[in-house]
Amino acid sequence: MVQEKKYKIATIGSHSALQILKGAKDEGFETICICLKGRDEPYRNFKVADKIYVIDDYKELFTLQDELIKENAIIVPHASFIAYMGVKKTESIKVAYFGNKKILEWESNRNIERDWLRNAGLKVPKLFDDPKMIDRPVITKFHGAGGGKGYFIAKNYDDWKEKMKAYKGEQDYVIQEYIVGVPCYIHYFYSPLTDEIEVLGFDKRYESNVDSLGRISARDQIALPKIDPSYVIVGNIPLVLRESLLPQVFKMGRAVVEESKKLCPPGLFGPFCLECVITPDTEIVCFEISARIVAGTNPYVNGSPYTWLKYNEPMSTGRRIAREIKLAIQKGELKKVVQ
Amino acid sequence: MVQEKKYKIATIGSHSALQILKGAKDEGFETICICLKGRDEPYRNFKVADKIYVIDDYKELFTLQDELIKENAIIVPHASFIAYMGVKKTESIKVAYFGNKKILEWESNRNIERDWLRNAGLKVPKLFDDPKMIDRPVITKFHGAGGGKGYFIAKNYDDWKEKMKAYKGEQDYVIQEYIVGVPCYIHYFYSPLTDEIEVLGFDKRYESNVDSLGRISARDQIALPKIDPSYVIVGNIPLVLRESLLPQVFKMGRAVVEESKKLCPPGLFGPFCLECVITPDTEIVCFEISARIVAGTNPYVNGSPYTWLKYNEPMSTGRRIAREIKLAIQKGELKKVVQ
Amino acid sequence: MVQEKKYKIATIGSHSALQILKGAKDEGFETICICLKGRDEPYRNFKVADKIYVIDDYKELFTLQDELIKENAIIVPHASFIAYMGVKKTESIKVAYFGNKKILEWESNRNIERDWLRNAGLKVPKLFDDPKMIDRPVITKFHGAGGGKGYFIAKNYDDWKEKMKAYKGEQDYVIQEYIVGVPCYIHYFYSPLTDEIEVLGFDKRYESNVDSLGRISARDQIALPKIDPSYVIVGNIPLVLRESLLPQVFKMGRAVVEESKKLCPPGLFGPFCLECVITPDTEIVCFEISARIVAGTNPYVNGSPYTWLKYNEPMSTGRRIAREIKLAIQKGELKKVVQ
Repeated sequence: MVQEKKYKIATIGSHSALQILKGAKDEGFETICICLKGRDEPYRNFKVADKIYVIDDYKELFTLQDELIKENAIIVPHASFIAYMGVKKTESIKVAYFGNKKILEWESNRNIERDWLRNAGLKVPKLFDDPKMIDRPVITKFHGAGGGKGYFIAKNYDDWKEKMKAYKGEQDYVIQEYIVGVPCYIHYFYSPLTDEIEVLGFDKRYESNVDSLGRISARDQIALPKIDPSYVIVGNIPLVLRESLLPQVFKMGRAVVEESKKLCPPGLFGPFCLECVITPDTEIVCFEISARIVAGTNPYVNGSPYTWLKYNEPMSTGRRIAREIKLAIQKGELKKVVQ
Repeated sequence: MVQEKKYKIATIGSHSALQILKGAKDEGFETICICLKGRDEPYRNFKVADKIYVIDDYKELFTLQDELIKENAIIVPHASFIAYMGVKKTESIKVAYFGNKKILEWESNRNIERDWLRNAGLKVPKLFDDPKMIDRPVITKFHGAGGGKGYFIAKNYDDWKEKMKAYKGEQDYVIQEYIVGVPCYIHYFYSPLTDEIEVLGFDKRYESNVDSLGRISARDQIALPKIDPSYVIVGNIPLVLRESLLPQVFKMGRAVVEESKKLCPPGLFGPFCLECVITPDTEIVCFEISARIVAGTNPYVNGSPYTWLKYNEPMSTGRRIAREIKLAIQKGELKKVVQ
Repeated sequence: MVQEKKYKIATIGSHSALQILKGAKDEGFETICICLKGRDEPYRNFKVADKIYVIDDYKELFTLQDELIKENAIIVPHASFIAYMGVKKTESIKVAYFGNKKILEWESNRNIERDWLRNAGLKVPKLFDDPKMIDRPVITKFHGAGGGKGYFIAKNYDDWKEKMKAYKGEQDYVIQEYIVGVPCYIHYFYSPLTDEIEVLGFDKRYESNVDSLGRISARDQIALPKIDPSYVIVGNIPLVLRESLLPQVFKMGRAVVEESKKLCPPGLFGPFCLECVITPDTEIVCFEISARIVAGTNPYVNGSPYTWLKYNEPMSTGRRIAREIKLAIQKGELKKVVQ
């Protein structure tokens, strides 16, 4: 009996659960999927879950806790997991949890996150706390339920004030310098067991409707009733990065991890993502960090061009997580990756 | 001797024939490619065909019929196959044919197709039979030989009337509500042998010139002589869908199949595609259905992120067809999938 | 002892070195990576190099020559290799070199290159040596260090003259007919050992900022301060081509190779790329040829949809080069592919 058989990998059925559960099975774990009623078909159909708990509300996860602990489950969180549960609830989970929970609060605080990135030496877009200070094109991003809806570009303060009228009462927004360049999401993995940074791949998001705006001619866009651009993520498209940018990509990943160790020991580990724009001067400007697996790794269920370089077998980010847990178990260091 | 060795898989050399023939070979079948003169090099070069018939005109397929029947060939149709042969000719083919031929006529009738999708509960764009009723931006699509050329967007009836002057005499068009959102093509497989729906993957088309219009700045587009947008498919780009949309994707596929069983028993089976736009509200609006393999599965010759979840071996749509035929032979149920 | 073990594959750490070195290892060669200081991390991390030489300046490659010769190294050049070293220096390298060095000078001469493509029967965009002759929209491309920066579109001579004012003193540019259509890069391999043309795949470049221009609405583009389009390559996106275009693609590749044999025996061999735009009439217009491996093959480290058709194992362009060298060694014909 290999010892990792005793543990099970569990996650909520959404976001990147398919690769998390498939990857866990490939590493020899049994898997558990916790699904909202009516959302379980993909997990049954793709046969990635050895057990499926169907619940009516994510709150029921708490009622399930004792059972999950009895099953020796290790929860692998993803962005939907945190979004559905909330930071406070996630922190209070008693089931074994892959990752550093302290990062949750700290990453959800925009100011700390920004300091973290800057202290790591990353280029970040300028923020305008006071709209009167706007001195260049900006994008205003709302943090409401709409996820990418309502974002608007303004060229100066007057333009901003005018456009903001449509959002009267909205308080939860940020005014960010608008960086002209192409979006690029960088997927990393940091192992606290080997102290190694891995670059797992790149993607760009597929956003409705901005990624089809350009398919309407400028003449038509101007003739038609105004179309409000929105940035709602509906998918992801694989890409590779110019190889000469990779040394910088590795440095950025390492710097972010080292900085996190100071801010919040033992710091960030496992998969994370830097959400960037690359300018025509090939400057990599970082907008945000996600301190866990992101959906941009979903194109790479069977490995990315980069994981194929390193591993001579299919290695998704989900499988990489399971392998880290397996390695930790084998080394007797599970506490290093699970809380 | 395995029994499937006796059958051969045949198709016309175009569209998705490479993966159909490669997939058939991977499943142990011999393969036959029927090619127009001068179009055979890819099939020779990639070594996917055990036998190649070079013909001068697709009509010669009928002369070849007796030979194909003698070879125990099963024809796998694709969109170019139907386009080259025509619906009536395809229906009259005597060689064994994978799929339900009754769907051909029925799918080529725009009204029946539309009822089918609506009765299955899918969201479809509004159609305007009477241009005077246009009450929102619309796109006018022509069904001539140009395949995507001449389509135009209009904001209201007057605009439509004006733009339509350039197409005097054109009768074969449809006026469709213009849905703002990103295109997404959903690839399914339905097995009548196991009653299972599979999601094989997603893509977006690469269309000339609309997919490079956005690379010309709005200022230049307006300064330059007017560029007519066109939607001619020249390739396909792989993508993955946001995982939280998958439960709906499965439901849509199942609903379309169940509805088809009522309309035209035994209904639709094998590969099919829902051609959709996803709006910023993550509504999936379906424009059209293709009741057979589409070229959007060509990025996945070695499997898609979704087929890798399900199969632990490379599974293209072409190979999935061959496997279905093999399974039907093994079960003695070939009649269920071949006509 | 297999004989290919005695040779080592070497390249400069940039561009497509990861797949060149990984591919060489997969074919059983030892590998050498020559890196600028501070740019070696990717090659160490992905473990593709058996030996890494860290240098301060590419000129040091010449000092390393005796050592490389002693190691029995064969250099595989890529675009950055040529860009860093220069044509003259590359020609004078004494280490064994994969490819036909005579092509270097000849390909760097725009007029010869253009004659080559035209004589091979390819469609090429019209050039305007005399700006006064501009009779259609044109794009002006500069060949300076900026790599894609400053390119501008003009609708006629007056427009061109006006826009050219911003580039006073610039001499090294070309005025090209602006072809409206979608970009597509075609990746080939020609083996002089078997006289076979292979199509290894397709990609489109990911260019900053033109590939995100369309994400800014036309209204915003016009309201904002003017954004200068730029075409700086920061990555690559995989795609597949419409299968009915493949016969033409094969013909184009063959024609270019045959023409090269006349121009400069033994002509072009190994990997090469035709950089094209596909118009709405599905005409393939060729802008440029790269006579070696290009970065557009980087999405296919684990094989492309096309190499998976031909090989039943992962075949990157880098690995294909190594296999060609191995085959040449086994046949005792290394001189045919190495200079």
